[in-house]
Amino acid sequence: MASNGSNRRRFLKQSAALAGVAASAGLAAKSEPAKAQNVHNEPPLRGARYTIDHMTHYTPLQDYAGIITPSRLHFMQQHSSEFPEIDAAKHTLSIYGMVDRPLRFSMDDLKQLPSVSRVHFVECHANSSLAIHTAGNPNMGLPVQYIHGMASCSEWSGVPFSVLLNEAGIKKEGTWLVLEGGDAGKFSHTLPVAKAMEDCFVAYGQNGDPLRVEQGFPIRALVPGWEGPFNVKYLRAIKVVDQPYMAWNESMNHSVSRPDIGGKARWYHYEWAVKSVITRPSAGMEMQRKGYVQITGLAWSGAGRITKVEISTDGGKSWKDAKIQGPVHTKAHTRFTYDWAWNGEEAVIQSRATDETGDVQATLAELSKNWGIAMDDWKKPDRPRAIHVTAQQPWKINRDGSITDAMFA
Amino acid sequence: MASNGSNRRRFLKQSAALAGVAASAGLAAKSEPAKAQNVHNEPPLRGARYTIDHMTHYTPLQDYAGIITPSRLHFMQQHSSEFPEIDAAKHTLSIYGMVDRPLRFSMDDLKQLPSVSRVHFVECHANSSLAIHTAGNPNMGLPVQYIHGMASCSEWSGVPFSVLLNEAGIKKEGTWLVLEGGDAGKFSHTLPVAKAMEDCFVAYGQNGDPLRVEQGFPIRALVPGWEGPFNVKYLRAIKVVDQPYMAWNESMNHSVSRPDIGGKARWYHYEWAVKSVITRPSAGMEMQRKGYVQITGLAWSGAGRITKVEISTDGGKSWKDAKIQGPVHTKAHTRFTYDWAWNGEEAVIQSRATDETGDVQATLAELSKNWGIAMDDWKKPDRPRAIHVTAQQPWKINRDGSITDAMFA
Repeated sequence: MASNGSNRRRFLKQSAALAGVAASAGLAAKSEPAKAQNVHNEPPLRGARYTIDHMTHYTPLQDYAGIITPSRLHFMQQHSSEFPEIDAAKHTLSIYGMVDRPLRFSMDDLKQLPSVSRVHFVECHANSSLAIHTAGNPNMGLPVQYIHGMASCSEWSGVPFSVLLNEAGIKKEGTWLVLEGGDAGKFSHTLPVAKAMEDCFVAYGQNGDPLRVEQGFPIRALVPGWEGPFNVKYLRAIKVVDQPYMAWNESMNHSVSRPDIGGKARWYHYEWAVKSVITRPSAGMEMQRKGYVQITGLAWSGAGRITKVEISTDGGKSWKDAKIQGPVHTKAHTRFTYDWAWNGEEAVIQSRATDETGDVQATLAELSKNWGIAMDDWKKPDRPRAIHVTAQQPWKINRDGSITDAMFA
Repeated sequence: MASNGSNRRRFLKQSAALAGVAASAGLAAKSEPAKAQNVHNEPPLRGARYTIDHMTHYTPLQDYAGIITPSRLHFMQQHSSEFPEIDAAKHTLSIYGMVDRPLRFSMDDLKQLPSVSRVHFVECHANSSLAIHTAGNPNMGLPVQYIHGMASCSEWSGVPFSVLLNEAGIKKEGTWLVLEGGDAGKFSHTLPVAKAMEDCFVAYGQNGDPLRVEQGFPIRALVPGWEGPFNVKYLRAIKVVDQPYMAWNESMNHSVSRPDIGGKARWYHYEWAVKSVITRPSAGMEMQRKGYVQITGLAWSGAGRITKVEISTDGGKSWKDAKIQGPVHTKAHTRFTYDWAWNGEEAVIQSRATDETGDVQATLAELSKNWGIAMDDWKKPDRPRAIHVTAQQPWKINRDGSITDAMFA
């Protein structure tokens, strides 16, 4: 656990003059945007002939301290227009395919089995989409909630895949799983057996409560550190197979074409790279006074623990270490804070995180280069699809105290 | 983080014969007791002429996995017959007494200050009261909820006392604090400055949400590892003084007389000693089959981290290490599990925890000796007051599968 020591410093006294009250600078939410409550960040796939029914909500990252997202505020991407009504007393989970003993588990069965509880983030692959930053986008300047709020963090409880798969007995040739949900669209996803055995579990609890219906009641897959679609909700079947399956979501919905290499596509995205965002102060808020302000935010990585978070208040020219506040879990949101005195001048603040593998959070320019996309392309109406975005997020603090999104500034 | 490795063992196959379903043994809640929902475990103080208005609820420890108690299930001891209605927009926290600068903070002020979030247990000093175990007590055999459920664990967020006290500037002679609540009875409690500066904070958030009214909305003291009454709810004033005050709760309500040494009393209890309890299987549940059952429970200590939990299935004669499941926070509930195969015979199961100071959880016989109380005295109608109880909790599993409280067996 991080030391409280630095909080004992009397920085409050060192900032601008006060009169009776300790707080020297403040933040106020400017106004709650009414838009974008139920829209998907990402525009429909170009040229697609189908429509996707979606229900979405975003976590208000700017509104809580600590790392636990209250369950009802956990983000949701529902790939249908309504929630399945599942009777937990009748729901079963089947394991079949390349196994020695096909098995079917009732919820009662599952709850008798060895359980684990782990704090992990879950994040939609479309979180932090670049579309929302684009100049001219009516959502520009929205609170951090609508840009980065498809990432949340909970204590999940359930049964390890290893327990279930060992009981069924995977045949030698079984190297992949297909997870199938019990929703109307049977949302399905491929998962390598190796990852399933490492740390995945079938979750029936979130933050001490049963799963909520929008989180997959009565059970969902929990695939720590990997992109959202792996975490199949309403889980009803695990098929053991010998190759990755091209489930609809993987082939049609979650692939990304690479025009620069002849229209080939990026498929099968797995682990989230290291990432962080300042949640306060952030776009849509307002600085109320000069002087002390606590910068705070969240960092996470699909590869393990966060080991460092740095803050720049000059648009990335210079960096200083933020304080990392325990607890630091693997593949989980990690809270950081940084004590700052705003001098009333224009400033661009941003964070960059480092994880235990040594990976350092990239800038958008670095990511774009890696993806073969020119920075200017992001601003075009016919812009490339941008998912799996982990770029540093700069916020611009203006002299009038307003705060705007500076991703493309 | 603890390894999942041991879950990969195929112990399910090693237990009694199965037919299609992996689960080999089970537990069922026998029936929900209707009694004791709103009574204080502890009988009224002998000879007292006053009555204490109390509202109580207990955490259903047997019903969740992991370590986070959902906020609405956090135990409550309300020292009044109704909740105060506090307008957060008008609520203030004053710091006065032996300080350089008396200060008053609004809620807005507090939320601008450096914040911390920590996972900690809070536990009523009367939790695990021995009264409830006494033979002939109608509550005998109640679920673990009503014996040990005045302990809960949350992620709390707020402002360190050190930040506030440093800003006010404590005079040299100021060594104690009196915390005063804004409820009708102005529930008050003494706290040493040294502890306040070490790790205490003024909490405004619980598990990512604002405090609930029964948890002290809008702010409460959080005094990690120390007994419940220190964690004053509805906090409105901190007075800095030079000696411990004999607040009503400390002198009349929370002291414990020692008849063996001439009626002198134990006062000023601080830190909770190391403690643990098996939450499943536990009294009131029923074993459904022979074979595999996961024993699970919670361990905690006011002195720091839990380092070891041991399980006995023969009434304390022999012990084996339980698995400790991460996260392991200081002064927080820690989940343990133990894989067991019940052979259908009578058995007494219990846990004992060790903390990082090397302290090992005591038996009731050891505690009683320390307190100068004969074991037989606990069964008398005129029994001694028993608070601060940390004794090992044995549960007896009978041949018919029923489970009973064996504290005095």
